[in-house]
Amino acid sequence: MPVAVIGASMTEFGDRDAWIRELLAEAGVAALDDAGIDPDDVEHLYVSNMASGEFQGQTGIMNALAHDLGVMPAYSERVDQTSSSGGAGIYEAWQSVASGASEMTLLVGGEKMHHKTTAEATDIIASITHPDEYKHGVTLPSFAGLTARHYLERFDAPREALARVAVKNHRNGVDNPHAQFQKEIDVETALGSPIVADPLRLYDFCPITDGSSGLVFTTEERAQELTDDYAVVSGIDGATDTHVVHERDDPTVMGGVVESSRGAYEMAGIEPEDVDVAELHDMFTILEFLQMEGCGFAEQGCAWEQVMEGRTERDGEFPINTSGGLKSKGHPLGASGVAQGYEIYKQLVGEAGPRQVAADTGLACNVGGFGNCVITTVMEAR
Amino acid sequence: MPVAVIGASMTEFGDRDAWIRELLAEAGVAALDDAGIDPDDVEHLYVSNMASGEFQGQTGIMNALAHDLGVMPAYSERVDQTSSSGGAGIYEAWQSVASGASEMTLLVGGEKMHHKTTAEATDIIASITHPDEYKHGVTLPSFAGLTARHYLERFDAPREALARVAVKNHRNGVDNPHAQFQKEIDVETALGSPIVADPLRLYDFCPITDGSSGLVFTTEERAQELTDDYAVVSGIDGATDTHVVHERDDPTVMGGVVESSRGAYEMAGIEPEDVDVAELHDMFTILEFLQMEGCGFAEQGCAWEQVMEGRTERDGEFPINTSGGLKSKGHPLGASGVAQGYEIYKQLVGEAGPRQVAADTGLACNVGGFGNCVITTVMEAR
Repeated sequence: MPVAVIGASMTEFGDRDAWIRELLAEAGVAALDDAGIDPDDVEHLYVSNMASGEFQGQTGIMNALAHDLGVMPAYSERVDQTSSSGGAGIYEAWQSVASGASEMTLLVGGEKMHHKTTAEATDIIASITHPDEYKHGVTLPSFAGLTARHYLERFDAPREALARVAVKNHRNGVDNPHAQFQKEIDVETALGSPIVADPLRLYDFCPITDGSSGLVFTTEERAQELTDDYAVVSGIDGATDTHVVHERDDPTVMGGVVESSRGAYEMAGIEPEDVDVAELHDMFTILEFLQMEGCGFAEQGCAWEQVMEGRTERDGEFPINTSGGLKSKGHPLGASGVAQGYEIYKQLVGEAGPRQVAADTGLACNVGGFGNCVITTVMEAR
Repeated sequence: MPVAVIGASMTEFGDRDAWIRELLAEAGVAALDDAGIDPDDVEHLYVSNMASGEFQGQTGIMNALAHDLGVMPAYSERVDQTSSSGGAGIYEAWQSVASGASEMTLLVGGEKMHHKTTAEATDIIASITHPDEYKHGVTLPSFAGLTARHYLERFDAPREALARVAVKNHRNGVDNPHAQFQKEIDVETALGSPIVADPLRLYDFCPITDGSSGLVFTTEERAQELTDDYAVVSGIDGATDTHVVHERDDPTVMGGVVESSRGAYEMAGIEPEDVDVAELHDMFTILEFLQMEGCGFAEQGCAWEQVMEGRTERDGEFPINTSGGLKSKGHPLGASGVAQGYEIYKQLVGEAGPRQVAADTGLACNVGGFGNCVITTVMEAR
């Protein structure tokens, strides 16, 4: 059964003086408003969130949000897939409508991270990894550094290519009023910033972010009654890779990206060439290359060439991360996948404002851990 | 589309010398074994768990389990609905098969609670409630005490009726080799135990428990190819009540139980009278009364009479908590709803051993918070 998206929202991303409940409610109210839906019409409510208990000592947030939004007695549930919780929420929302369990599903993803210090937040995020890896100091940023060094050397790619990802995404973020950073940077700034995990530097990493984002799903039949502008989730799939990263055959191939995008294309009946715009999970700049390749937008080891040629700029042939990406928009874990969906939806219904590109088909790739879990969603304009 | 259950497992419940990953893997392997399914056949893996991050500092457990079981690249996700996470997992597993997203879904629910002290565990559980309630000392056990006092006075029920719930469930637990307590108690012991939240005493409460449980779901078509003995999920629904408990109209009516059971009956096309056996969420003895009434097994204020008459004993007309219930079996949060499903499934396929009762239709009611979220599942033998 085709499942439609009829509304979307996102809060300001950044260092927010608000509790997780408030952030979720802000996006929830705005998404229902965007869809023109009454709270009473909501049958299922999903909350994508990784760690509200660890960050703020508050659990049961799906129930709290159902109460705050007045959608009771709607079914409510929290969906966690670490940093791909948002994409997992899209998959659950899709399943809820496609199975007939719900005719109107609200998804709200959110995370409040600044309640903890950066060191504490790093510890919470590192709890995704295998305890033996973390014990030896191997965190997600250090995996990114190792992978970047390997990629650059093996494929003879210039260090500048990574910086260009950051520059592009910062430029896009300037036109996103919700983005954490609305500030252009240049290649020299990126290349001159402090080293975090060699060869990656400060501007190769997304920030710690508070924020929330919402999407409203219904049947295509109901969508047609309600609005002229909607999108459909035409393909979606998720996949898991090894928990222990060093057990993977090739550090430049993200198996979860390959598998989930293959499944999503098959379901949608399209090829990578049919995608007009994509939101990729650029938690680290190197990941934008790995996802371009895993999703079939570039051959292995070649994604960097497209970035150097400007093909993935907003005015290029195949724009990537028009929202600013995680890099400049920010990465509030549970919200990020939902916010990718927000950007694709807004592009498809022509409401992306100054970021608008020409697009009938969009793709979002949301990555949990270091590719441990991945969800790929294909949406099409109707 | 009818969704079938073709296998089930549960680990020993109790104080387990194992990490959450090990507990989940133990139940996962056993469930696949019970269903006669190869790990490669699993397409979706759901992990019901409330707080592995808070209890053990380990997140990403769905990915870790996918790795440990060798089901990669199967989709994996953690489902949280606090103490009803297990029931929510059943709902997600159902949706995954009913929507066509997965033909073979493994659900594993688990929690490792003894890694923390009882005081720390109480804090983690209390994080479900509204911060203002908790600040004033109102925890889930204190809600239970207030509700029990109100119920006994308003409906002129004897204090002994609550003790009889504990006595019955302990007696059933004696025949459950997986139960945390395999020990009979008598009414005098229950009534003489220390007060916890007046009028409730030690034996009115479930313990803190480590454990895990698994279920395997597939299409009815595939189930027929694979086995002669299976059950179907013929009805399932979930509902949410207020986050702030004092805002509810009647403290003896659990709105989520009423709504979710109504939805499950409607979907199954049955009435409460058609149910032969039930697992109810007896986290506190008083909850067994409230769920009997909310599910339509007794009029409001009358459930206690059935308990006093012995009707809900294993050899009574309508056995409740043949497994021993949360009271004697234990309550490892994320596992409990799955373990309710285990008991109903085993009863329906005639594999409940010394606990076997005559049953073609069974019901499980899983409660999160103090009725904040509730899932009711109806299963039928095929």
